[in-house]
Amino acid sequence: MKELLLKYMDTFTSLSEREQQEIVDTIVLEEYPKGSYLMKQGDKPTSKCYFTLQGCVRQFYVDEAGKEVTSNFYTEEQAILGFNTLAKDDHTSDFSLICMEDCVLVVGDLDNEEKMFHKYTQLETMTRKMMEIYLSEAQEERAVFIHSKPEERYKIMVQKRPHLVNRVPQHQLASYLGMTPESLSRIKRRMNNELVKDLES
Amino acid sequence: MKELLLKYMDTFTSLSEREQQEIVDTIVLEEYPKGSYLMKQGDKPTSKCYFTLQGCVRQFYVDEAGKEVTSNFYTEEQAILGFNTLAKDDHTSDFSLICMEDCVLVVGDLDNEEKMFHKYTQLETMTRKMMEIYLSEAQEERAVFIHSKPEERYKIMVQKRPHLVNRVPQHQLASYLGMTPESLSRIKRRMNNELVKDLES
Repeated sequence: MKELLLKYMDTFTSLSEREQQEIVDTIVLEEYPKGSYLMKQGDKPTSKCYFTLQGCVRQFYVDEAGKEVTSNFYTEEQAILGFNTLAKDDHTSDFSLICMEDCVLVVGDLDNEEKMFHKYTQLETMTRKMMEIYLSEAQEERAVFIHSKPEERYKIMVQKRPHLVNRVPQHQLASYLGMTPESLSRIKRRMNNELVKDLES
Repeated sequence: MKELLLKYMDTFTSLSEREQQEIVDTIVLEEYPKGSYLMKQGDKPTSKCYFTLQGCVRQFYVDEAGKEVTSNFYTEEQAILGFNTLAKDDHTSDFSLICMEDCVLVVGDLDNEEKMFHKYTQLETMTRKMMEIYLSEAQEERAVFIHSKPEERYKIMVQKRPHLVNRVPQHQLASYLGMTPESLSRIKRRMNNELVKDLES
């Protein structure tokens, strides 16, 4: 599994093989079986942060009406942040994080991070570049999302995260896309029909 | 204006005063009069990036039906990214950036950035921390936004970015919030009425 990390580092840094190996050796990988919670809504977040190497983590919250809302899915090579609780009065988490599959995660400790970055400045460079790409994507996603109809949202998701469709329960996927499960079924049926017609013509 | 930058740096770094001054001296500040374009839809993006010190920059695009869609407003202390065109085939910009007011922007050059970061690693630390906060906010915003009704979206915007309401044309604000100008007027009228009632009671 650590090979994946090395590959990832190689894309973003020019660290020597020895340095890369040194870093990878100090990084903590943890396995979380399906159903594990990384955090529960209302808990005080710890100083931990995560990076998904394998598996799928769902972020969700229960709203005031008691309805469960899925707000994100984190899959391979995605950082799980959202510990930005500084702005809130009671410093508790607004959401839960649950492993939807058996997961392998890089577990970072924000308290140690500084030390690591101080020792390996290139690691900080890598993190900074990753953050810039993620932020740029998040800004773009918001822009597209807010003005698109449910069918377009589904198409964009299929295009950008095709693996999600078969990995998570459909009612959670519908929630993530901001639509009802019925709408999602209808959209999928319609798209399948179009595909069949295209293949027949 | 550079004092604002120094104040900002002070929050995120422990650079000495001399180092801070050195950095600020090398940073390029530019004034852009209202109406200036930083980028036009369809152009090839340059290696520039921006950080707003004063003013308001609107991001928008013209969709396939010829309709103008406002996707973001960048105001004081916000970074303007969105140059993530790596994934696209023709490497052109999906949107335009226009100054809605007379603006003072930090203009960064992504080609020079690396050199600066190499010289002042704390500057990279500052950027990395900023990015983490922004990303965390963007993830949260997406989560809230997708499941909220137009009225809630407006309320969140008023809470998080109160100054926007009076700084930009209402039809653009409506577009940014993913609603029609008529809906926005209705929501504002209703909220004003409620406020008046509260004050009278």
